[in-house]
Formats: sequence, structure tokens, C-alpha cells
Amino acid sequence: MYKKYAIIVAGGFGSRMGSTLPKQYLLLAGKPVLMHTIRQFAVCGEELEIVVVIHPEMNGYWKELCGTYGFDVPHHVVYGGDTRFQSVKRGVDFVLQQTDDIAKTLISIHDAARPLVTTEIIRKSFCETTDKKACIVAVPSINSVREGDSTENIAKDRSRIWMVQTPQTFTADLLQQAFLQGESPVFTDDASVVEQLGQRIYIIEGDYRNIKITYPEDIELAKLYMDTLERR
Amino acid sequence: MYKKYAIIVAGGFGSRMGSTLPKQYLLLAGKPVLMHTIRQFAVCGEELEIVVVIHPEMNGYWKELCGTYGFDVPHHVVYGGDTRFQSVKRGVDFVLQQTDDIAKTLISIHDAARPLVTTEIIRKSFCETTDKKACIVAVPSINSVREGDSTENIAKDRSRIWMVQTPQTFTADLLQQAFLQGESPVFTDDASVVEQLGQRIYIIEGDYRNIKITYPEDIELAKLYMDTLERR
Repeated sequence: MYKKYAIIVAGGFGSRMGSTLPKQYLLLAGKPVLMHTIRQFAVCGEELEIVVVIHPEMNGYWKELCGTYGFDVPHHVVYGGDTRFQSVKRGVDFVLQQTDDIAKTLISIHDAARPLVTTEIIRKSFCETTDKKACIVAVPSINSVREGDSTENIAKDRSRIWMVQTPQTFTADLLQQAFLQGESPVFTDDASVVEQLGQRIYIIEGDYRNIKITYPEDIELAKLYMDTLERR
Repeated sequence: MYKKYAIIVAGGFGSRMGSTLPKQYLLLAGKPVLMHTIRQFAVCGEELEIVVVIHPEMNGYWKELCGTYGFDVPHHVVYGGDTRFQSVKRGVDFVLQQTDDIAKTLISIHDAARPLVTTEIIRKSFCETTDKKACIVAVPSINSVREGDSTENIAKDRSRIWMVQTPQTFTADLLQQAFLQGESPVFTDDASVVEQLGQRIYIIEGDYRNIKITYPEDIELAKLYMDTLERR
């Protein structure tokens, strides 16, 4: 029997006034994005513990939000570092301290600003990782794709180009080894840290609507997508 | 002095009832998407002729729409073929019949379902193509990217991965040669047809909001983006 954790990475910080507030604290359908994200893991049907990595300066605000919205989904709060790598590493370290058998522990890492992740894809991520050790969610490119710079570039076969999302799910022993490595600019996501060990990464095909809320308009788009997902 | 044409590719057909109507005929901010698209080229500040490639079965409907909405922007209508390649080829053939000096003719090919193209990027496309002969609009990937299939794949440097959009602008002599080639499955866009000649393709960095309306929700997103573009 595997022990399961979700690490939800909400490392950013900013003013609660104005547009610099990290997107995971913006309101979506009446409550902060991060609460939607946490809730999807809580209701996914897996027995798991939720670890939320928060910037230390946002902890007071987050507690206040939880009070205001009566948010009572149990979760651990871990303070993040200066980069995503450091934030995830602290989340992983927290899990490693909690668990005895790291080969039988699965950790699913997810962006706080992706509230539209479905419970189905969360379950599938855990399920496939028991066998494959490193499974990430991605979608094939719907655009034509070129590789290179603006003056030298070539057409790519877009059926082989994947837009990476989260969750990215790994066995705890892989993540332990991966985050012992020094931080590197080639680490653009958690899978790239694990891949550096020589580990094969498996892709689970996800849903285009699992967007990362990045621009102000994305909140409106997320609302639209949320409606279509709920109508299914 | 260059002669300039825009070929707006609206080749699809479908029932005007229900969701099978091609997206370029859906209403956006009170009028069909295709009218927004044509208008951007008409008001871009370049002297140009507009060629709209329409499926023959949609011509009656398009005429009816133009009457209903009092749409009076001058444009040629050319009937499309069964594939995008065939449709663009017919648009190019039409232009070639109209023009004497094909080395001094520029053709900008644009998706009908991209109504949010800015006049600035249209002007830039024509301007840069006088010098570079083949210029396409694209945006760098905001996602982490992997290449391969679901079991064997590697992380890519996302700063070198471009999501291709339109307009794609070329000299008429290049397009003449390009569309003499037989159709091939590697032709995922117009640039790939021209590239097959050995021609270098230049990228003009565009705007993420220049979306291709593909899914029903994209109409709502286009509305949001339209507001932010008009506020600039």
C-alpha cells in the first residue's frame, strides 16, 4: 500500500492590493484559486495528505483567507524558498520527514494556479506512478511549432510536441535523489529535475482546460472552463 | 513599390444550425468572426486587396451575412478546396492572375478564425517581408515543452520553441513556386510549404491574444482579449 502526498506549490508573494497579488490568491467563482486547487486533491477519492508550499510573507494572509472563507480542508503549510526549485525541495523534505518507506510513497506536485485539474487526472497520476515512477500530465500542441530563434528555425512535427502541465507525480525516493542535485537553469519543471537523474518520464495525456492562471484574463477563462467541466 | 494582398482562409463548411458551423461564422461582439478578421486588414493602414477563401457551400450564407450585417468592406471571394493546402493554393492562384510583377507582390495569409490580429502586426508582417521574403508570426512557448511520445520523450529548451500563428507573409514568387509542389502531410501550415523549397523562414514575435477560435469557449475568451486589446 502506497502512502500518497500532494505538494501544491504556491511560492509567490506580492501585495494584496493591485495586480501584483500572485494569481493563486485571486478570486475564482467566489473563492481564492488556491482553495479550488486544494479542494480537487481533497475530493479526488485518494487517501492523501496535502502540503501547501507558501511564501512565508503570505502565511498570515492565507490564514486570514481560510478564516474569511471558512476553508476547513486539512493541509500542512510549508514555507517556500526563493525559486520554484527551492520551494518544491522544501515540500519534498517535509514529506520525507513524515514517511518511513520512501519507495512506497508517491508525491504529486501541482501548481497552485491550476485550479481546473480534474479528480480523474489526479487519480490516474497516482495510479500510473506506482508502476512507472515518474508521470507527468501534458497535452499535445494544437499549434504548428517551430524550433530555433527568430532567424534560424525549423518546423517541428507537432504531434510529438507536448505542452507540459501539472500534476507531476513521482515516487518519493526519486524526488529525494533529484532534489539533492544543485539547482540548474535547465530545470524548467519538476520532471526536468528528475530526468537529470537519468529517469524516464512518462506522459499522461491531460485536458487543455487545465490552464495555469498567469494573466488577469485567465481568471475569466478559468470560469468558463469550470462551467464546461462541471457540465460533463 | 510593392503590391499587397491578404488571403484570409475560411475554407471550412458546416451546418448553420448547431455547433458544426465553422468558428469563423460564429458571433463575436455582435458580428461574425470573419468580419472582424477582414476588417483588421482593411483598416491596417496598408493599401491592399483582400481575398477571402470560402467553401463553395458557404458562399450563399456568407452573402446573406454580409447583407444582414451591412458588411461593406471590399473583398474578393475565391472558392476553397478540400484541404487547407488546396484552399490557400486557390487564393494564391487568384492573386497571381491579378498581378504582373510577382517579385514585387506580397501576400499575407491569415486564418479567418484569428480575429484578434492587430493592425500593428499586419503592417510589421508586410514591412519585414519586403526584405526577408518569408515572415511568420509566432509566440514563444509559455509552457515547459517535451518532445517525443508518451513513453519516450525529452525536455526541450522552451525559449527556442515557438507556437506558430498567422499572418504568414511571403513574396508572391515564393508562394507560386511553393504551391507547385504536391501536397504533403508535413505541410502543417503555409510556412512549411515554403520551407520545403529551402527558403529560410523568419519569425516576427506576436501576441498571445491572437488566438485561433477552435473551441466554443474560445469565443468568450476572444471577447475578453478584444476588450484588453481595445483598452491599450
